[in-house]
Amino acid sequence: MKTQSTTLDITKASSSRISEVDFDNLAFGKHYSDHMMICDYKDGQWQTPQVLPYGPLSMDPSSKVFHYGQAVFEGMKAFKDEDDKVWLFRPEDNFKRINISAERLAMPAFPKEYFFEALETILKFDKDWIKTGKGNSLYIRPFVIGTENGVSASPSSEYKFIIICCPAKAYYSNPVKVTIAQKYSRSADGGVGYAKAAGNYAAQFYPTNLAKEKGYDQVIWTDANTHEYLEECGTMNVFFRVGDKLITAPTNDRILDGITRKSIIALAEDEGVTVEVRRVSVKEIVEAAKNGELKEIFGAGTAATIVPFLGFDFNDEYFELPQVENSYGARFKTRLQDIQYNLAEDKFNWTYEVK
Amino acid sequence: MKTQSTTLDITKASSSRISEVDFDNLAFGKHYSDHMMICDYKDGQWQTPQVLPYGPLSMDPSSKVFHYGQAVFEGMKAFKDEDDKVWLFRPEDNFKRINISAERLAMPAFPKEYFFEALETILKFDKDWIKTGKGNSLYIRPFVIGTENGVSASPSSEYKFIIICCPAKAYYSNPVKVTIAQKYSRSADGGVGYAKAAGNYAAQFYPTNLAKEKGYDQVIWTDANTHEYLEECGTMNVFFRVGDKLITAPTNDRILDGITRKSIIALAEDEGVTVEVRRVSVKEIVEAAKNGELKEIFGAGTAATIVPFLGFDFNDEYFELPQVENSYGARFKTRLQDIQYNLAEDKFNWTYEVK
Ligand SMILES: Cc1ncc(COP(=O)(O)O)c(C=O)c1O
Ligand SMILES: Cc1ncc(COP(=O)(O)O)c(C=O)c1O
Repeated sequence: MKTQSTTLDITKASSSRISEVDFDNLAFGKHYSDHMMICDYKDGQWQTPQVLPYGPLSMDPSSKVFHYGQAVFEGMKAFKDEDDKVWLFRPEDNFKRINISAERLAMPAFPKEYFFEALETILKFDKDWIKTGKGNSLYIRPFVIGTENGVSASPSSEYKFIIICCPAKAYYSNPVKVTIAQKYSRSADGGVGYAKAAGNYAAQFYPTNLAKEKGYDQVIWTDANTHEYLEECGTMNVFFRVGDKLITAPTNDRILDGITRKSIIALAEDEGVTVEVRRVSVKEIVEAAKNGELKEIFGAGTAATIVPFLGFDFNDEYFELPQVENSYGARFKTRLQDIQYNLAEDKFNWTYEVK
Repeated sequence: MKTQSTTLDITKASSSRISEVDFDNLAFGKHYSDHMMICDYKDGQWQTPQVLPYGPLSMDPSSKVFHYGQAVFEGMKAFKDEDDKVWLFRPEDNFKRINISAERLAMPAFPKEYFFEALETILKFDKDWIKTGKGNSLYIRPFVIGTENGVSASPSSEYKFIIICCPAKAYYSNPVKVTIAQKYSRSADGGVGYAKAAGNYAAQFYPTNLAKEKGYDQVIWTDANTHEYLEECGTMNVFFRVGDKLITAPTNDRILDGITRKSIIALAEDEGVTVEVRRVSVKEIVEAAKNGELKEIFGAGTAATIVPFLGFDFNDEYFELPQVENSYGARFKTRLQDIQYNLAEDKFNWTYEVK
C-alpha cells in the first residue's frame, strides 16, 4: 500500500510480523521491525527516501562495500513511556555523528530532513514494536554503504542510506570482566577510530576472541603507540571512579565521541561529582586498584547503557573491583533511564518526542 | 545447465556476455566474466562451492558485513600466452594470504582444494575473457564477507567466499605523483594493516582525496607513531632506488606482504642488485632527492604491476625524480611480465598453468 508524504516515498507492509517475536526472550539484533528506510545516492545526490517493508537487498558481488569497507553506522534507541508516547534520546547527535563518520570515509553527507522524516515515519508505523518498561527499547540502526559496482580501490559514486530497527532488551545481561590491551590495538593516530566505521569493529573481533579464551568478555583498548593509556571498550566508552572522582579519556581521533559518555559527564557534573576528562594511564588504575582507591569501572554506550565491570586483567594479573554502596554507575544509569523513559524532568533537553 | 564435478556444484551460463565488452577501452573493474564462485559457510563448515553465472546476491540489510566490516579480499591475475595457455602467478601465495587476512578478522579459513578447483573451473569456462598480449589479463577477485543476519558486534557465524573476475589492462595509465603522509595514517601497530581487510581501504579514501586536490595521485603512508618511516602506497608496496641500491620497507603488522614486492626482491637479487629490506626514513629519501642520489621510486602490486613515480611531495615541497636510463622499475617490470606471460624461463617456479 502506497501512502503519500512530501519528502518520502512510502510503501506500508500489508501485514505485521510482530506476532513471530517472543519479546520475553529477545536475542539482540535478531528480529527486525516491519519497516525500513532506504535512500539511494547516485548522480551526485540523494534520491527520494523510501520507507518500505523490511526485506533483502539485491547487491552486485562487485559492490564496493564488500571490497573496500565503505560503511558507517549509528546506534540509537526509541523508548516508550507509560502513556505510550515514543521518545528518542539526543537523536540530533547521532545524525551529526553519522555524517562525521561518513566524511572520514569519503562518503556524502545525508540531509537532516530525510533522516528525521524517515525515522519518525518508521517509528509511527512500528510503534507496537516498542514495549514499555525500563530496559525495553527499539534499537535503531542507521547505516550507509558504498554500492557502486566495481573492484577498483576508490570511493563509491553510489550509496545506500538505510535505517532498520530491532526490539531490544539490555545488551549485556551480566556484568563484564575485561582485559587491558597490550599487543593489539583498535585504531591509529590519524586513523578512523573516531568514526563509527564498520572496519573498526571487525578489527576488534580476533583480539576479543583471544580475551574470551582467557575468560574476559571485552578488551579495554589502549593507545597503539605505547599501550599506556586506557581508551574505550567494545562499543562503549569507559569511566573510572577513583575515590569520589570520575575519570574518562578525552575523545580524540582514535576514540568515538559517545553520546552516553557525554550525557554521563553532564549528569555527574550536575550532581556535583568531580569529573576529570583526561588521559587515564594503565599504571594509575592498577595502582588505584592495589591501594583500594579504585571503586568502579563501567562502560557506557547506547546498546549497553551503563555496564559495571566486575574486574580487569592486566598482564595476567586480575584485579577484582569492590562492591560499592551508592555506585556511580547504578546512579547515573537510573538518572539516564529516567530521562529516556520520560519518568523524570529532562532539564538538559535531551529527549525528542516522536509524534 | 548443470555439469558434474566431485568437489563443486556447477551451473554453466546459458550464453556469454563477452560481446558486450569493448576490450580496447576497458575501465578497470567494470565488467565481470560470465561465471563466479560462491561458497557458503554455515553450521561451522564450508558447504559445497558453487560455480554459477555471475549475478546479484540477496543480502539481508542486517548482514554483518554492512555493519562490522568483516570482509577480506585478494587480487590476482590470469595471463594468456601466445599458445592460448592460461597462467596464474604465485596463486598459492594469494590463497595463503586470504586465510591470514581472514584469521585476523576472526573469519574461518577456506580449504585449498575448493579455492583451486573453483579458480580453474571459472578460468576454463571464461578463457575467452583473457586476451593475449602484455598488459592484458583477467583480474581475479576472491573475497569473503560475513553474512549472518544481526546487528550485534560479534563475529559472523555465516560467510560467503566469492570469486569474481574482470578483464583488465594496466591499472594506472600514467606515472603517478605522490605525497608523503604527515597527518593521516593507514594502520596502527597491533592493527589490521597487514591483512587485506576491506576497512583498510575505505580509511585511505579521504586522505587520498585531499592529496588529489593538491594534484597528487596517491599517498605514501608513514608509520602512525612518528610519520618518519615510509611504508606503502594505495594498493602497492614501494621501492626506492638510491644510487644503485634498491630499498624497501620490511613487512610488519602494518604493511601488506605483497607478492609483487617479494618477486621484485627475488629478481633484483638474482641480477646482483643490492636490496636493502629495512626501515626507510623520510629524511633519508628527501636528502637523497636533494643530493641527486635518489634515482627512482616505484610502486609494486598485482593490479598495477610496477608503476614509476614521477615525483613526491613532502611538506609542500615537491621533488621531481630524474629520468634514468636503465630504470630498475622498467627492467623488473619486463622480467616479471616475461615470466607471467610465459615468454621467459621461470626459474623461480612462480607460474601455475591452468589446464
Ligand atoms: C567504539 C564505540 N565507542 C563508544 C560507543 C558509545 O557511543 P554511544 O554512547 O553514542 O552509543 C560506541 C557505540 O555506539 C562505539 O561503537
Ligand atoms: C595495501 C596493499 N599493499 C600492497 C599491495 C601489493 O600486493 P600484491 O603485490 O600481492 O598485489 C596491495 C595489493 O594487493 C595492497 O592492497
